[in-house]
Amino acid sequence: MVIASALGAWSGNLERAGKLFAGVSAEELQKQVAPGKNRLIYLWGHLAAVNDRMVELLGLGERTHPEFDAVFLSSPDGAAEMPPPEELQGWWTEVNKKLSDGFATLSPGGWLQKHNAVSEEDFAQNPLRNRLAVLLSRTNHLSYHLGQIVLAS
Amino acid sequence: MVIASALGAWSGNLERAGKLFAGVSAEELQKQVAPGKNRLIYLWGHLAAVNDRMVELLGLGERTHPEFDAVFLSSPDGAAEMPPPEELQGWWTEVNKKLSDGFATLSPGGWLQKHNAVSEEDFAQNPLRNRLAVLLSRTNHLSYHLGQIVLAS
Repeated sequence: MVIASALGAWSGNLERAGKLFAGVSAEELQKQVAPGKNRLIYLWGHLAAVNDRMVELLGLGERTHPEFDAVFLSSPDGAAEMPPPEELQGWWTEVNKKLSDGFATLSPGGWLQKHNAVSEEDFAQNPLRNRLAVLLSRTNHLSYHLGQIVLAS
Repeated sequence: MVIASALGAWSGNLERAGKLFAGVSAEELQKQVAPGKNRLIYLWGHLAAVNDRMVELLGLGERTHPEFDAVFLSSPDGAAEMPPPEELQGWWTEVNKKLSDGFATLSPGGWLQKHNAVSEEDFAQNPLRNRLAVLLSRTNHLSYHLGQIVLAS
């Protein structure tokens, strides 16, 4: 029941973000959310990269574009060239399908198992470091950037 | 365990927002998060009003300033006069203490009981309309506006 709520919040946010990005032109994707702040295209790639990492973090398969971490996670906007919007759209669709397919395989107990960035020892000490905590945290992260995206779209 | 994760996310966000608002001057509170968008002071009141409603929605006590709904929930920024920052700070502190005191009284089962804006009949049909779902949704709402607040602070 709790997991259904958490998944509902995640997919609602994800759908909203996806529609916002898909609904703007390549030119509009160059808009900054506020003067001097990230462009929409960067935030799209940033969210796709975070989702790509989630696939591995939650043990749901292989990542799609780990090479984009350097562009969208470890570099600020403006430091690297952006891939074309079509490539971002394809990545976004593919990685989110991997996530939703993977989520469908997890039992309630599976959500309470450790995620892949915590050791068995650390997890024994802090069982809150589970898959569900990752989902909640990434849902919040998505909301955080959604609040910014709507300012420019 | 799940509830502890959800409460951790809520209180982490709340603390971050509180620090951001308390850390800016009365003048800076007049800044818009992006050109033509909400001012920080409006968002502070907006988040306080949402939290104030949560007290009642979750059955944790009486509201503090229901009269501010007209200013921060049903009116956009610019439509009504803002209370002074000291009053917002007092309200914010008071209402968030009511929430945290109330949360401490809820058992895990209590989190899965219906919230006060759903009828017994509707809850029987959709048991996801529980207190925990409110907490998750309000945590996301807080993240959404946090993403905006940081643009101006």
